Amino acid sequence: MNEPVFILKGNIIYSKDLTELAVCEHGYLVCRNGLAEGVYPTLPFKLGGNPIHDYGDCLIIPGLVDLHLHAPQYSFRGLGMDMELLEWLETNTFPEESKYKDIEYAKKAYTIFADNMRRSATTRACIFATIHRPATLLLMDLMEKAGLSTYVGKVNMDRNAPDHLREETQESAAETLEWIKDVLHRKYENTRPILTPRFTPSCTDELMEELKKLQMRYGLPLHSHLSENRSEVEWVKDLCPWAEFYGDAYDRFGLFGADCPTVMAHCVYSDDREIARMKENGVFVAHCPESNMNVSSGIAPVRKFLEDGLNVGLGSDVAAGSTENLFRAMAHAVQASKLRWRLMDENLAPLTVEEVFYMATKGGGGFFGQVGSFEPGYEFDALVLDDSGLSHPQPLDIRSRLERMIYLADERVIKAKYVKGREVDLS
Amino acid sequence: MNEPVFILKGNIIYSKDLTELAVCEHGYLVCRNGLAEGVYPTLPFKLGGNPIHDYGDCLIIPGLVDLHLHAPQYSFRGLGMDMELLEWLETNTFPEESKYKDIEYAKKAYTIFADNMRRSATTRACIFATIHRPATLLLMDLMEKAGLSTYVGKVNMDRNAPDHLREETQESAAETLEWIKDVLHRKYENTRPILTPRFTPSCTDELMEELKKLQMRYGLPLHSHLSENRSEVEWVKDLCPWAEFYGDAYDRFGLFGADCPTVMAHCVYSDDREIARMKENGVFVAHCPESNMNVSSGIAPVRKFLEDGLNVGLGSDVAAGSTENLFRAMAHAVQASKLRWRLMDENLAPLTVEEVFYMATKGGGGFFGQVGSFEPGYEFDALVLDDSGLSHPQPLDIRSRLERMIYLADERVIKAKYVKGREVDLS
Repeated sequence: MNEPVFILKGNIIYSKDLTELAVCEHGYLVCRNGLAEGVYPTLPFKLGGNPIHDYGDCLIIPGLVDLHLHAPQYSFRGLGMDMELLEWLETNTFPEESKYKDIEYAKKAYTIFADNMRRSATTRACIFATIHRPATLLLMDLMEKAGLSTYVGKVNMDRNAPDHLREETQESAAETLEWIKDVLHRKYENTRPILTPRFTPSCTDELMEELKKLQMRYGLPLHSHLSENRSEVEWVKDLCPWAEFYGDAYDRFGLFGADCPTVMAHCVYSDDREIARMKENGVFVAHCPESNMNVSSGIAPVRKFLEDGLNVGLGSDVAAGSTENLFRAMAHAVQASKLRWRLMDENLAPLTVEEVFYMATKGGGGFFGQVGSFEPGYEFDALVLDDSGLSHPQPLDIRSRLERMIYLADERVIKAKYVKGREVDLS
Repeated sequence: MNEPVFILKGNIIYSKDLTELAVCEHGYLVCRNGLAEGVYPTLPFKLGGNPIHDYGDCLIIPGLVDLHLHAPQYSFRGLGMDMELLEWLETNTFPEESKYKDIEYAKKAYTIFADNMRRSATTRACIFATIHRPATLLLMDLMEKAGLSTYVGKVNMDRNAPDHLREETQESAAETLEWIKDVLHRKYENTRPILTPRFTPSCTDELMEELKKLQMRYGLPLHSHLSENRSEVEWVKDLCPWAEFYGDAYDRFGLFGADCPTVMAHCVYSDDREIARMKENGVFVAHCPESNMNVSSGIAPVRKFLEDGLNVGLGSDVAAGSTENLFRAMAHAVQASKLRWRLMDENLAPLTVEEVFYMATKGGGGFFGQVGSFEPGYEFDALVLDDSGLSHPQPLDIRSRLERMIYLADERVIKAKYVKGREVDLS
């Protein structure tokens, strides 16, 4: 357990906004009761008596936020990606997810997942589990133990799934209620439940209505998929002919941000109406660039989202994304935006280092409250990065060293990690 | 020094051709006098007396071939990529490359480069140095010591470069001649010279003629850039109005494969005539997908190159590519091809795991001779990969474990590396 007040010393860098980084070289970052209190180039006299963790020439950045990933898919990361979304779900995903009915298999798989998440750059995450209540609770136990702050969801699916993964509508609602009660009973400190209808094609209107009842009763947020792939968008048109656009098929049930904090993954094919509704409702977009490459979805118009003032964060989307490493997600976001600019639309400029860093910290962090910055009052999530193993012959300023991390960092550079002011065991 | 005959035991996997992998689980790979002699599921009796290196459940694959990278740019890998090629050259590349006039700086920088190449998955590489003869020789000394088999080139530039990097035409030719003599004098075992005119915009016709003379006199191969970026292609049209297409501007001087083994990096904008000439002349294409994303060049039509029977390998293109890790280049090649298919041309199918693995081994290896396979008579370049750190709950077959490497491997998984039958020191 850390002290109520402690100080990290190092090269502190964080986003002020989308275009500007705050840099404090060899500065002091103060944590008080789990919150950031201030960043100082020299330590104020009144703070002198508190413990200082001197990280020398290391970089200190806010913890990274993964707005979208699938814990049960971690087992097949980097595998089976020679296909598009809907085929990929049938061929790889559903067969693997059905294994989590077996709690022993779930324990084996989720232990690997939780261990690797613990050692990763991620401090916050929105996580899909499977439809299985016991395995989902087990995952939540493991994430709580890992020390990250997460939203985890038992998945709902009552149509268009193989028999062994398809719930009856009332069963799905009842299991979700039981799961919520179980979670509340366990009194987790860092692990919260989130409603997780897989996506519109997997959930009947009746199930959506049931989920809305649970949402209102327990004030829960929601996590789902939106406009990822062309065939999926067409499918939703067929399934919900009454919806103005895909996102409207969630909104009709009150499950699209208006009165329920909502994160939607992908939004590759969101049209102007959908974007306007997301803006109006405060929906968070989880941009998952590697996934969108791997399952040939396309490239989301992130520049437009940013110009329109949407809430945008990054998602690894394991296992359509191959890695939980969010530095890689930042690099992929820049790269995808460049190809989009070059090949599709020269009006939407490529993303910058500043922008993707913002998205990976403060942008996605907003879904968790005051998270993703070192401004006073923000929850104290921090990463200490030792980049000395990445040798270079010339001097580099702090901003350049951060840029290099985006392209080159993996868990080896993480020297320490703090979540809400508590140090995470990286061993 | 390894014995004349030795045997590696493990899970052996290599490309037969573009579509098929040869797999020998818990098999024996025999090396005799630096060449692959055979792969056996059980060890033939007559080989029984030779030393066996048992790598247990590790994967054993051919060494990876990097057909294009810039050693002096390694210092700024992962930096300064918010711009396109020509601006990026002016802003980042030329100022850094000019530092290599200072042999002390070169020693510092190239030592880092050579050390990291030694520990990487790369066993063969075609490397750009700078215009500086002493620094280029130093780099060659270091690469020889590192134990890789490489082509290294002193760069030629006599126009469109800042003063401190622009040679006079005759000076460039004379320095290149001196450099070749120096190299021959040093009698390297694994390090060979390659003519390296930077690209057409950097080299006058007169310089090209001088280089052709040297090429004929010494029988040297050639390494350059081709059709990477739209502005560059337009520029070459202005500079060489007599050329039918960009590649023809090399071919007119006899520097495009017909009688001089040639590797050309990028080929993003190669048209049908250029592709036909590359095929006719046996030019090797170095496909550099990450670079083409990072400096917003576009996506090369690799599927077409393969369909037309061109020689295609992969390049990291450090530092427009951020990493020397060729596993990453394979993943980027698949990802870029998927976006090209989705966004540009649904007639050119995405690349498969088998195809990118072939390109990274046998495809690029062809530029070095019989390299990139374990078929009898191939030079013995091998990587032993310990993927046990990448945990998974389910059984995985050998082909799946290779696929995972493409997305997840870095130098941590490399347990041993052999070049021409000699083990490389990875410490």
